[in-house]
Amino acid sequence: MTATWRVILTVCAALSGLPRADAQTPVGPAAGNDAAPIADIVIGSRILAEFGVLDGFGHVSARDPKNPGHFLLSRSLAPALVTADDIMEFDLDGSAVDPRGRSVFLERFIHSEIYKARPDVMAVVHTHSAGVIPFGVSQVPLRPLYHNAAFLAAGAPVWDIRPDFGETDMLVRDSSRGRSLAQALGDKSVVLMRGHGDVTVGPSVRMAVFRAYYTDVNARLQLQAIALGGDVNYLTPGEGAKADAVNFVVLERVWNLWALRVAPSLGK
Amino acid sequence: MTATWRVILTVCAALSGLPRADAQTPVGPAAGNDAAPIADIVIGSRILAEFGVLDGFGHVSARDPKNPGHFLLSRSLAPALVTADDIMEFDLDGSAVDPRGRSVFLERFIHSEIYKARPDVMAVVHTHSAGVIPFGVSQVPLRPLYHNAAFLAAGAPVWDIRPDFGETDMLVRDSSRGRSLAQALGDKSVVLMRGHGDVTVGPSVRMAVFRAYYTDVNARLQLQAIALGGDVNYLTPGEGAKADAVNFVVLERVWNLWALRVAPSLGK
Amino acid sequence: MTATWRVILTVCAALSGLPRADAQTPVGPAAGNDAAPIADIVIGSRILAEFGVLDGFGHVSARDPKNPGHFLLSRSLAPALVTADDIMEFDLDGSAVDPRGRSVFLERFIHSEIYKARPDVMAVVHTHSAGVIPFGVSQVPLRPLYHNAAFLAAGAPVWDIRPDFGETDMLVRDSSRGRSLAQALGDKSVVLMRGHGDVTVGPSVRMAVFRAYYTDVNARLQLQAIALGGDVNYLTPGEGAKADAVNFVVLERVWNLWALRVAPSLGK
Amino acid sequence: MTATWRVILTVCAALSGLPRADAQTPVGPAAGNDAAPIADIVIGSRILAEFGVLDGFGHVSARDPKNPGHFLLSRSLAPALVTADDIMEFDLDGSAVDPRGRSVFLERFIHSEIYKARPDVMAVVHTHSAGVIPFGVSQVPLRPLYHNAAFLAAGAPVWDIRPDFGETDMLVRDSSRGRSLAQALGDKSVVLMRGHGDVTVGPSVRMAVFRAYYTDVNARLQLQAIALGGDVNYLTPGEGAKADAVNFVVLERVWNLWALRVAPSLGK
Repeated sequence: MTATWRVILTVCAALSGLPRADAQTPVGPAAGNDAAPIADIVIGSRILAEFGVLDGFGHVSARDPKNPGHFLLSRSLAPALVTADDIMEFDLDGSAVDPRGRSVFLERFIHSEIYKARPDVMAVVHTHSAGVIPFGVSQVPLRPLYHNAAFLAAGAPVWDIRPDFGETDMLVRDSSRGRSLAQALGDKSVVLMRGHGDVTVGPSVRMAVFRAYYTDVNARLQLQAIALGGDVNYLTPGEGAKADAVNFVVLERVWNLWALRVAPSLGK
Repeated sequence: MTATWRVILTVCAALSGLPRADAQTPVGPAAGNDAAPIADIVIGSRILAEFGVLDGFGHVSARDPKNPGHFLLSRSLAPALVTADDIMEFDLDGSAVDPRGRSVFLERFIHSEIYKARPDVMAVVHTHSAGVIPFGVSQVPLRPLYHNAAFLAAGAPVWDIRPDFGETDMLVRDSSRGRSLAQALGDKSVVLMRGHGDVTVGPSVRMAVFRAYYTDVNARLQLQAIALGGDVNYLTPGEGAKADAVNFVVLERVWNLWALRVAPSLGK
Repeated sequence: MTATWRVILTVCAALSGLPRADAQTPVGPAAGNDAAPIADIVIGSRILAEFGVLDGFGHVSARDPKNPGHFLLSRSLAPALVTADDIMEFDLDGSAVDPRGRSVFLERFIHSEIYKARPDVMAVVHTHSAGVIPFGVSQVPLRPLYHNAAFLAAGAPVWDIRPDFGETDMLVRDSSRGRSLAQALGDKSVVLMRGHGDVTVGPSVRMAVFRAYYTDVNARLQLQAIALGGDVNYLTPGEGAKADAVNFVVLERVWNLWALRVAPSLGK
Repeated sequence: MTATWRVILTVCAALSGLPRADAQTPVGPAAGNDAAPIADIVIGSRILAEFGVLDGFGHVSARDPKNPGHFLLSRSLAPALVTADDIMEFDLDGSAVDPRGRSVFLERFIHSEIYKARPDVMAVVHTHSAGVIPFGVSQVPLRPLYHNAAFLAAGAPVWDIRPDFGETDMLVRDSSRGRSLAQALGDKSVVLMRGHGDVTVGPSVRMAVFRAYYTDVNARLQLQAIALGGDVNYLTPGEGAKADAVNFVVLERVWNLWALRVAPSLGK
């Protein structure tokens, strides 16, 4: 373990050269994301796998910064194993630009259709996170308990595949289903998928990953708050909007900590 | 940890030579199981121990691919410690073919009687998984919340040893009790054992292990969904059948990830 | 991690020279406990710390096999750190035989008074286990859900210090309080201590440790079974007695697995 | 791992030179805190991060032992990464004494205002601990289940920012909000922050950290006790006061164990 901590401290020293999140100067939504989206997809996938938000399933994508009509997503592979070499490019019909015989995710249409419907979205995360699944099958709406999950205050809709598509295998395996999901997402940050998992979106991979994590945490805590009995004092929409602005400010600090945690898995 | 990750990446490179699960081409139930059942018993036992589905107890078996009247099961040993050398051969009366003085599992009759009753079953997993035990003692039926547990949609019966055998030590210690358990299992994938644990079955060790894991996960999530209050929107039988077909497609991807996780425990 | 697994396999090879738990030949209550109680106290303390049943607090003792009027207990030290050199000897008034300036546990009277009251008891474990504490403050009795916790079928009384001693610091700091606790324990294997934790006893350190662990597990599972709603199908007293006999048979297999898990912490 | 345990045993040997917590001689509130507050801030931050009480957020501070008008708090950094070099000095208006361009915590006013209002307080810990957050949004008061959380018996008020400040981003970003929070804390050891987390205080860093940890543990256990249904037998105020005195006695034993656990992260 001593060797591991040496490399961590080395990475830490390297990262200390990056601009810090200065709590007195809001960084703003799009800032703090100099890192190539590919690197962030790799790190973000491993972060969420490390936290148990992603298991053998789920995926992280980013809109191509050079071409809004394309997005970056790994080949079909467990998130914990994703490397830069696994990242492929897709168009918004879900077709791989240069497949070279690599397997693709069946559910790439989750990504393609959301990128179509939401020009503001630069990253999409799909999980089967355990905290969220009970809410997806329940009538109880997911609502934010605290500031790190403030983005839930605008609402977390539930997409149920059954009304439009009948009895299916639950997967978003074509653009028609993807379109239905994107419609349910609307202008929100999160959409739950009944009997499946969820999708979180954001203006950067880092923010989409942050939201995937805190959606799961909030779900677990909300269940507990409900189990206590009595009223629960959720964030109001106004509190949600203001607190979410702070999440952008603190994003880099949190990302750096999380990246250190998965550094060993990248041989760093 | 750097050393560990080196070996993991080595195994990963080796595995990358194997056919990938191509999401566009269904692999089908019996495919993707070239690996000798013995290797899968060893890896599967350790995977389930790693996940806490098996603790010091429980066991994984496979029907002998060369002789349907025999099955393979380790000697009496904690699952986390099973190696290929521990695997013994039994007939369907639960007798060891070549005991050589090795201790055998008291509850091998769980396996022998299910192999007798179910010619389609090629693997059996018995666990005391914590997620499942509350359901085994409850009137609330275990039902699938999401697609990875789709195999539960056909039903998850509960076998209670007391009606037929009175007050016992709860163990399936002879073929008579094993027969009763197999009867309760019927044509399902899972049977809960009241005050004991569960059994999952499948057409391969890998699928039986997958089911053991996701039965436990689903139980934990179902409890949470119930705790939220109100109706729970379970998978329908139609959704269950369709989604379970997908579980066969993704099985290899998940198995490879899990196998990597236990590779260090095998000195790999 | 490779180094760790090498030492584990070495210990494993060494242990393989020990008699195996032969499922066909009952070992009986007192058997399988050749290991000196001191070694078992050290390993058992670390096992329970590893499982989170003991945290910085709690202790494991053994009656001196050579002198029933004495017992062995470590000096005041976190259980995860106990070594053979920390073990001290006490008489049944709780006085150290050869203190040599070492700090003693304030609550050694838990042990001394139980050894006085229970000639059959050869080991005592005191924990603040998280699973149990909610039951100690509740009116809901702890009852066995499954066979590994069968010893609970005889009953798990709750000792509340307040009726006899008024408002105290909750600790068993003298023989008077210890006597009251031993009275509440009666002839059972477990007594819960309201607002404090629990005590488990047994005919060996290994069995007392086994019971401490499965009391905690059962408590957690029972809470979940209750949360599902509706009746819970507990073990009957008859089932409990029969299943507990099996716990003696499997004790050694489980102990060996657990001992391997803490071997690295002992530099083995 | 063998290397890690060697360094742990080395640290252990070094620590064994320190005076032990002698259970027969009460150490008293201020004793056992020879270690410079800076070292305790570093270790305490890492301890709480290790236990998951602090994640990427939260902070530990100490009043400057040489100047009660100043306090010590790290620069804006995840608690798991804090080193002695990161510690800065602040006055009770929240201004850094010698900033040198380092980022400061937005919420340093939690600390400054509590140090102003509470001359007895020598350390402050702010967390977003998962156990506590459900209670902060609930009407159910946090109350002590057992002796390690005895300090809760005096009461654990909830501070809601909304009544005084309307819809905000939930953060204590100025002295006005800090003052409101300190007012809610009153003379207690803990104050919950609705939709945010909590603050624990104490006469030393070690005690504030101890309280942060056991507040989180107690919250989790109290939820479970409530979920069992029926009355819960909490500690009375008298029990709470007496048991909390014991927490001072055992503090050093627990701290030493926890410090060992984070020693590797400090390269020790």
